[in-house]
Amino acid sequence: MQNFNVPPVEGVAGGGTSYGWVHQDREGPSQLTSGEIDPTKVQSTELLHVWCMPSTANVGQQEVPRPLEPVALLAARNERESIQIALRPKVSWSANSGSGIAGAVQIRSTDLCSSSGDRLVVGKSLTLRRVVSILGVPDALVPLDVPVSRINLRPGETTAIWVSVTVPYDQPPGQYEGQIIVTAVKPDAESAMSYLPKDEKYRLYKELKSCLDVVEPRDDKPLEEAVEGAKSAASSLKQVLLLPTFQECRDDNTSGDEMDEDNIINTSISIRFGVTVWDFTLPLTPSLPAVFGVSETVIEDRFCLQHGSQSWYDALDQHFEWLLQYRISPFFCRWGESMRVLAYTCPWPADHPKADSYYSDPRLAAYAIPYLPILSCTDTAKDSLRREVEVLKSKPHWKKAYFYLWDEPVNLEQYDMIRSMSSEIRAYAPDARVLTTYYTGPSGAELAANNFEAFVKVPGILRPHTQIFCTSEWVLGSREDIVKDIVGELQPENGEEWWTYVCLGPTDPHPNWHLGMRGTQHRAVMWRVWKEGGTGFLYWGANCYEKATIPSAEISFRRGLPPGDGVLFYPGEVFSSSNEPVASVRLERILNGLQDIEYLKLYSSKHGKEAALSLMERRGVYLGPERYTLDHGPIDLMRADIYQACNFEARILFA
Amino acid sequence: MQNFNVPPVEGVAGGGTSYGWVHQDREGPSQLTSGEIDPTKVQSTELLHVWCMPSTANVGQQEVPRPLEPVALLAARNERESIQIALRPKVSWSANSGSGIAGAVQIRSTDLCSSSGDRLVVGKSLTLRRVVSILGVPDALVPLDVPVSRINLRPGETTAIWVSVTVPYDQPPGQYEGQIIVTAVKPDAESAMSYLPKDEKYRLYKELKSCLDVVEPRDDKPLEEAVEGAKSAASSLKQVLLLPTFQECRDDNTSGDEMDEDNIINTSISIRFGVTVWDFTLPLTPSLPAVFGVSETVIEDRFCLQHGSQSWYDALDQHFEWLLQYRISPFFCRWGESMRVLAYTCPWPADHPKADSYYSDPRLAAYAIPYLPILSCTDTAKDSLRREVEVLKSKPHWKKAYFYLWDEPVNLEQYDMIRSMSSEIRAYAPDARVLTTYYTGPSGAELAANNFEAFVKVPGILRPHTQIFCTSEWVLGSREDIVKDIVGELQPENGEEWWTYVCLGPTDPHPNWHLGMRGTQHRAVMWRVWKEGGTGFLYWGANCYEKATIPSAEISFRRGLPPGDGVLFYPGEVFSSSNEPVASVRLERILNGLQDIEYLKLYSSKHGKEAALSLMERRGVYLGPERYTLDHGPIDLMRADIYQACNFEARILFA
Repeated sequence: MQNFNVPPVEGVAGGGTSYGWVHQDREGPSQLTSGEIDPTKVQSTELLHVWCMPSTANVGQQEVPRPLEPVALLAARNERESIQIALRPKVSWSANSGSGIAGAVQIRSTDLCSSSGDRLVVGKSLTLRRVVSILGVPDALVPLDVPVSRINLRPGETTAIWVSVTVPYDQPPGQYEGQIIVTAVKPDAESAMSYLPKDEKYRLYKELKSCLDVVEPRDDKPLEEAVEGAKSAASSLKQVLLLPTFQECRDDNTSGDEMDEDNIINTSISIRFGVTVWDFTLPLTPSLPAVFGVSETVIEDRFCLQHGSQSWYDALDQHFEWLLQYRISPFFCRWGESMRVLAYTCPWPADHPKADSYYSDPRLAAYAIPYLPILSCTDTAKDSLRREVEVLKSKPHWKKAYFYLWDEPVNLEQYDMIRSMSSEIRAYAPDARVLTTYYTGPSGAELAANNFEAFVKVPGILRPHTQIFCTSEWVLGSREDIVKDIVGELQPENGEEWWTYVCLGPTDPHPNWHLGMRGTQHRAVMWRVWKEGGTGFLYWGANCYEKATIPSAEISFRRGLPPGDGVLFYPGEVFSSSNEPVASVRLERILNGLQDIEYLKLYSSKHGKEAALSLMERRGVYLGPERYTLDHGPIDLMRADIYQACNFEARILFA
Repeated sequence: MQNFNVPPVEGVAGGGTSYGWVHQDREGPSQLTSGEIDPTKVQSTELLHVWCMPSTANVGQQEVPRPLEPVALLAARNERESIQIALRPKVSWSANSGSGIAGAVQIRSTDLCSSSGDRLVVGKSLTLRRVVSILGVPDALVPLDVPVSRINLRPGETTAIWVSVTVPYDQPPGQYEGQIIVTAVKPDAESAMSYLPKDEKYRLYKELKSCLDVVEPRDDKPLEEAVEGAKSAASSLKQVLLLPTFQECRDDNTSGDEMDEDNIINTSISIRFGVTVWDFTLPLTPSLPAVFGVSETVIEDRFCLQHGSQSWYDALDQHFEWLLQYRISPFFCRWGESMRVLAYTCPWPADHPKADSYYSDPRLAAYAIPYLPILSCTDTAKDSLRREVEVLKSKPHWKKAYFYLWDEPVNLEQYDMIRSMSSEIRAYAPDARVLTTYYTGPSGAELAANNFEAFVKVPGILRPHTQIFCTSEWVLGSREDIVKDIVGELQPENGEEWWTYVCLGPTDPHPNWHLGMRGTQHRAVMWRVWKEGGTGFLYWGANCYEKATIPSAEISFRRGLPPGDGVLFYPGEVFSSSNEPVASVRLERILNGLQDIEYLKLYSSKHGKEAALSLMERRGVYLGPERYTLDHGPIDLMRADIYQACNFEARILFA
């Protein structure tokens, strides 16, 4: 308004409306004024928020900024520790109309170096992945290029980068330091990369080629022709140099080099990244076998692979290798009639040279042998089974072998099937182990007063046809005390073991791996296993999306299952041209949980299991299926406690 | 597995696990096989879902695909109708690693043409905007280029495009037809546009320039030198042609033209877009004045404008013009002590030539005159006020004028302030109108038995110092019958009017404009106004974000207010380099509601208000603040009914 001179005092009654009566002193950055923003000339801190979040945080698009603090991780050798870097634009610095992009950032990572010159090498030990939402929940981890990559940020959205440090088995202990440097840059099209329309490029190429033709020296070329040629080339070149592409070169006499490094450093946000590698090595072979199903049918359908073809073997190979890094012992599988299941860890017969490299891989804690007659009850199939068992039972890795014949039998008929198959197997190898999953006793058998009784009595019914009694965690509800009833029925002296599994149950607030659960809830599955004392764990499926016949087809979760159930990784093709599987954050948290078990086992080995349980409880990490930490802090404290208690010698060395 | 021959029947018991025992016949597209997908060679229908959604749908990232049906809109002249096009990738066809992009689509729109050759021109009458989420809710409408634009799709995410048809005031009625054509294309960097790294470009430029130098004819140049020059140029050119940029030119002898048009048409998805323009013109001047506040302080702070500078006037001008298209009568405002408010529609004094163009704009239904002594109680200020009133009271647009002096007075002291200001104003113009907003009676006055009584009695206290009694819809709760108590206290014969407003109340499920409410809930605010019979409507703020001092700074909603309250549009700079405000879908729905009022008024004018109310009720559009349609269908049916009932002549013409 004209004539406004003395503004009154600021309103106080108006809540949201009170803002703005008086002209307050302008807060905020001094470098930024109205008009377009050139990110190379402004401190990146004025353009975006950068902060760190722990691996158990689900960093969604609405995550609110926090102060940036240096990263300080603790890791053993052969361990992977992860943290997230969150980015959120404060302003928009993209001039790209309608792109929906606030701006781009360059992310540059250095090696992590110790004072004695050892390194955790970026790209090998230090990896960066972008956290992509699935059904609105941050879940898929899509690899970023290292050491430098570039990502676009959207206005009003937080983007998370998952940073993992994977410490090699033989890494020298010590304090490693490095940096992750975030720099606001112009989005690709506006900056160091410029667009060259294809037709202009072809035109340029043709023009230059014809220039070359006229100036190209030829022995038989008369001098005059050469001079004419030069003249004509000169005229063409003049035209070429006037092409719109070269506009900025004409306007500008600088070198046109990429942003110079000094300037980047001056405007960047640097995240100090420290990792303490301590003098403890996670065992190559996981202490707790975690056997995870991988649907061969899903692989065949989605990647259009003929069963038994070379590329089929390659795909299975790739999945096997890729899952081993997660301390998981994979089995390929198909389900059949009444939950009959075919499960096998190695697609080659036992006498094939590849089989031994699968079975004796030290990272494999357990392997499934296929019960072949399940597919065809011919003599050939029976012979194959006998051959398999006979080859394997003499091998040193035989102790890792198991048969998984039936998923959750529910009636006596199904129990009989298991008995019959098991008898056949045990005829060939009396010490063979059969694993049976169950959550109930057989219906139709009047064995017990109630359902729970019937469930607890299953070992009596299946003995000696099952050695690994694998029960659903869902059965326990929140009653850990039931564990002793289950375990009390087993004969460990005869090699009987108690394993557990999760699938569609249990549900919130109990630990499981469904999408949308808390990060600590994902990690708590393994804390629970360790506390309850099971000696192994089974998960039904890691890649059980809905059927698709194109590698890059959108991922759909199966109807009737909670989102994320049966899906722990995604086909890389959905997110990029890479065919490497894309891990979920849930899979990373499973690995974290399995690593926690090694820490707890180490602590128990020195101080006893009771002390380890009490540490877990004291730190508030895990007290029961409804009482575990919701925040990350207690996890780091517990790990630090274990490090303090088990690393005396190392601590003296580093002091 | 080797040796697998006869697969058993498919499992039935396993729910999600049952998939995949047998090899089913492959469903799905035949053109797509494993490996990289070239979108120019595949039907776009195999790559993405395209479908339409009504303007009242909140189309989020998880919106599920539906069948594609042709668009058929009904619109009057001077009306805007909108629909949404939703896109969701079925597969990924971007090879751009880590980009997080599934693929890109080109969207091409044609003019909408009638058989008599009239047109609704793309870019003018037909506009496309991308729906961008704010706090996870689809809300901001960022303009797309027309007739052709390109957007990126993300895997597993639905993207919505808001398509609006704005029918000019003088458009001939008729049936208009056009198309919106969606074609999957390679993301920019991979297709017709290729990247040219800047350093390579500069190097290329330099090389060519030095070639030119050596071949450039000069009179004094000896022949031998010219030949040498040609030789050297030839060698440089050979090097240049080997640059990586020209790789594909070397490999390829085709012309490198853009995708040819035929191929686009062959692979595209075409959406038939029909609009029936009927022989009814929405009045230029809205029948119901809807006065909306625009915070001048927010504009000054965010755009760094000096109060009273030329660019400040330009900004206010732009906001005024831009809001008029929404059938809104803007007022600029600041709030002060105890909710004292300064409100003015025109920043120039009444005797300034610009003032008349503001006040007499036919699209403006009401305007606020500033009560200047509010800022400075000097004689100069009082003189200014007198001058303003004296100039304006003789103008034909004086009947649109009002003074808005205080927002929600709550005690007798504040009532006295209003009385005193109003007395001053009415001394200059006895027929001046004062608007007062309130949701309660004055505290401290023992006027009534209870709060509601006190509220209803306010007109008695403020008469003759207020003419427009503007009450909060929140007071009514779900009790429409209270309206008669409020209106019963008024003296319409003395020019007293009842207006309403919404702000932080009422809340769900009542109609309001908060983010996250249903689309029909947004639109229902105006249905409610029309049904209850108020003769005007006030909204406190359209741009009341949290303070920022950079145009492109991230939008924050004010603390203590429900998200979206006080924010109906966003600064364009947040989303692109454009400084045109970016509308929210809520603002579009407000326009839709205001347009619905014109339809209902037309119907009432022919059949009476009772009939119009009964139509609204019969179609289930709006029955009360807790009973209105949740789906879009009834809205279109009601509009079609009105069209049928009011368009006899036109129908005969078109038949």
